[in-house]
Amino acid sequence: MAKQAKTAISPTRAEDYPEWYQQVIRAADLAEVSPVRGCMVIKPWGYAIWERMQSVLDEMFKATGHQNAYFPLFIPKSFLEKEAEHVEGFAKECAVVTHHRLEEGPDGGLVPAGPLEEPLIVRPTSETIIGAMFAKWVNSYRDLPLLINQWANVVRWELRTRLFLRTAEFLWQEGHTAHATAQDAIDHTQRMLEVYATFAEGSMAMPVVMGEKTAGERFPGAVSTYSIEAMMQDGKALQAGTSHFLGQNFARAQEIRYQSQEGQLEYAWTTSWGVSTRLIGALIMTHSDDDGLVLPPALAPQQIVLVPIYRDEEQRAEVIAYCNHLRNELRDVRWRDERLRVHIDDRDMRGGDKVWDHIKKGVPIRLEIGPRDIANDSVFMGRRDRAPKEKQGVARADFVAGIEALLDEIQAGLLQRALAFREANTVTLDSKEEFVAYFKGDSPGFAWCYAADDPSYEELLKDLKVTARNIPLDHNGGTGTCIFTGTPDVKRTIFAKAY
Amino acid sequence: MAKQAKTAISPTRAEDYPEWYQQVIRAADLAEVSPVRGCMVIKPWGYAIWERMQSVLDEMFKATGHQNAYFPLFIPKSFLEKEAEHVEGFAKECAVVTHHRLEEGPDGGLVPAGPLEEPLIVRPTSETIIGAMFAKWVNSYRDLPLLINQWANVVRWELRTRLFLRTAEFLWQEGHTAHATAQDAIDHTQRMLEVYATFAEGSMAMPVVMGEKTAGERFPGAVSTYSIEAMMQDGKALQAGTSHFLGQNFARAQEIRYQSQEGQLEYAWTTSWGVSTRLIGALIMTHSDDDGLVLPPALAPQQIVLVPIYRDEEQRAEVIAYCNHLRNELRDVRWRDERLRVHIDDRDMRGGDKVWDHIKKGVPIRLEIGPRDIANDSVFMGRRDRAPKEKQGVARADFVAGIEALLDEIQAGLLQRALAFREANTVTLDSKEEFVAYFKGDSPGFAWCYAADDPSYEELLKDLKVTARNIPLDHNGGTGTCIFTGTPDVKRTIFAKAY
Repeated sequence: MAKQAKTAISPTRAEDYPEWYQQVIRAADLAEVSPVRGCMVIKPWGYAIWERMQSVLDEMFKATGHQNAYFPLFIPKSFLEKEAEHVEGFAKECAVVTHHRLEEGPDGGLVPAGPLEEPLIVRPTSETIIGAMFAKWVNSYRDLPLLINQWANVVRWELRTRLFLRTAEFLWQEGHTAHATAQDAIDHTQRMLEVYATFAEGSMAMPVVMGEKTAGERFPGAVSTYSIEAMMQDGKALQAGTSHFLGQNFARAQEIRYQSQEGQLEYAWTTSWGVSTRLIGALIMTHSDDDGLVLPPALAPQQIVLVPIYRDEEQRAEVIAYCNHLRNELRDVRWRDERLRVHIDDRDMRGGDKVWDHIKKGVPIRLEIGPRDIANDSVFMGRRDRAPKEKQGVARADFVAGIEALLDEIQAGLLQRALAFREANTVTLDSKEEFVAYFKGDSPGFAWCYAADDPSYEELLKDLKVTARNIPLDHNGGTGTCIFTGTPDVKRTIFAKAY
Repeated sequence: MAKQAKTAISPTRAEDYPEWYQQVIRAADLAEVSPVRGCMVIKPWGYAIWERMQSVLDEMFKATGHQNAYFPLFIPKSFLEKEAEHVEGFAKECAVVTHHRLEEGPDGGLVPAGPLEEPLIVRPTSETIIGAMFAKWVNSYRDLPLLINQWANVVRWELRTRLFLRTAEFLWQEGHTAHATAQDAIDHTQRMLEVYATFAEGSMAMPVVMGEKTAGERFPGAVSTYSIEAMMQDGKALQAGTSHFLGQNFARAQEIRYQSQEGQLEYAWTTSWGVSTRLIGALIMTHSDDDGLVLPPALAPQQIVLVPIYRDEEQRAEVIAYCNHLRNELRDVRWRDERLRVHIDDRDMRGGDKVWDHIKKGVPIRLEIGPRDIANDSVFMGRRDRAPKEKQGVARADFVAGIEALLDEIQAGLLQRALAFREANTVTLDSKEEFVAYFKGDSPGFAWCYAADDPSYEELLKDLKVTARNIPLDHNGGTGTCIFTGTPDVKRTIFAKAY
């Protein structure tokens, strides 16, 4: 066996994928578990990635006509009870506030006091409370469509948690809209799914499949749920965003009614859609390698880091001055309509340690700059999408002139690589036997199969630990016969193991 | 009595100030009460003002070396119990989570189930949970200072609530820092107070007095608390931001220790500081008038609104084209390093109604544009800092060329006006008799008085419904004899009725 190159992350992906994931997070200092069961602490580098995601998404939401607003953290129990399926889905595991005070107890410790007449639920999602406000705001067809987004924290009690992927509290955005017609609401549901897909592919460099969820995977209370599904590097699927057409279910439960142009009183049609800090987990598992995090330039909090190399104070002054000048020059460049994000790392540490730190944190471009480089008016460049040792000298002027093209190239390259990986791990299966063999095999990925949307083969899926991911909107292959039930004329569904 | 001009807001400030405040919020569509007791809904125009505040403050925090992070919503009860004074201050009225599930009860409704071993408190502030993380992150003097900020929602149970000023849930930022020395922490506490003052005066156009809180008004657990205090148009004070030097109190309670350069294990010195959506209440009460909200350009979600005026479709096409061209021209201008925020209001409504809508919403500059204006290549401008009827025609080219200066003038004018109001309503009082007479009088404002920082005259203050606001850092008048106790050599304190 050939000697393996040493990697910054141990174990490697091949050795132990779940543990590799935890170690990438630790090495990049993205987040850690907190003393509060199920809740995570998002550390500065992880939070800065979320801020980048928020910034890009927020602009896309505003460009599609949405306004941000803020609604209460708490949902009265009676609100949750109004929509039957919704209760089923969300009442099970949630944080319940029952008291509004702590008082000194008999043993000197604090005990809950001031019992509430009606318990409050920490929002697991806000359809019910936002619906109650929409009922006040919507009166006439002139008030529609009503297009609102909220950035917020939500809580869904989880016992088995994993950083970013599944935590009791997480951060997200939830869009909520009301429309005059079913068609307008359905169109909007798909429009926002497309916004998510554009963000995933354009900013995260993460290819996704847009499709409709099967009945069993629908949002509780929705008429139809759409998702974008991405493939992680272990072949598993990750649901990266969902968009729900809620029909008139919540409008009826919350009495969201409007007077139509013809003077009739009608229930509105509503939608909701969301993405969360889970996207950071998806980002990690799409691009990172055995040396740590790999960030696409569009979402990197720092796109370029300058590492000054010097031996003494005299050299230091010269090198820092050169770095400052270069940083200012680079900051004047705009890429994707924003100033470049450039950082000079002047910490009191060995240059080599700094370089590895930035590799593990996923910074797209590293420039090492010492007296010799300055003499040549050049920079020594390393790219995070290439091997750590693969560095090259570039004339400073060429580097600056070519930086926009270079960022485009890195961004596009990451998407292409992820797309190639997904294509290489996607199959079309046309029999149940093939299906079973594939998912019992070594490294299953996405399987596209003709399948009826019914629960009759649920047990088989459960045994194989496989789920229906979605029924792609772009259903290549037309219709065919269900490989499980023999039902004719069904579309292909994507099946995979999933997060 | 002269006939009063009709105003958009009824009652006027003079007639009923508290009700005027509620009506300004309603007319500008900023927020409303929610069905969840004590919680408000921040509507799009109100939330957009908060987003502007966040954007400016966030940049100031980053420029002073802070990084954002995110910590859990919940605080374990035992954490709150660790710092004695802190418990006293925050355990009293808080939201207590005692269960993590809802189950179907005997009568078919949902009842709390899955009792928690240890109750969780919805954070009223995060010193304890952030302190617990700092204890893990701080090991050596090299890790200090640690400068962290969090944007978050917090909950303090309140029975008597007022939109923006006092609500059970509110949005805020909380800065938390750890330092190697007391002096460094004290300096940082004051630095952040200055950041708040700069924001208040520079962006909100709201003059503030920086000072130290008296012992009775300190943050629970702090060694010293500093505040910025602003005067509202009814002469009352509003505490607009606080910055706390926490000494080693929280470091001891949470075990935040570091190894010093000399190899000793030392407790760190910590600070915390915050401002909240309360600032929106302060903004409203500083500038608004009897026609509604008045926004300073730096925080206005829209700085300029264009109201197209036309009679028919043919005119409409011409007017809208002209407006689009002008908007694009204006958006190319940068003021305070940002693109101008320009909106074209093309709603299907009477032009006069639109204009009043923007007056009530506080948009700094309104441009009415009809065919006659286009013929002259001019705009018909109204300024929110002038009377509604006081409009003037301006050549378009002159308007565009002068827009930066105009925004500067409006921004500075609002600050000057608020400063003049405060000066006119500030007195220096040198005896207890004057003090009592002043606060029993018709329209008290700020009274600067020599006063000892002790509780001996608390009853008197309580009877007069007056509080010590702060001991100004810039204590003009040196020291003197306390007007209440006769104690010599004390500084002047500001007293006022307050929100």
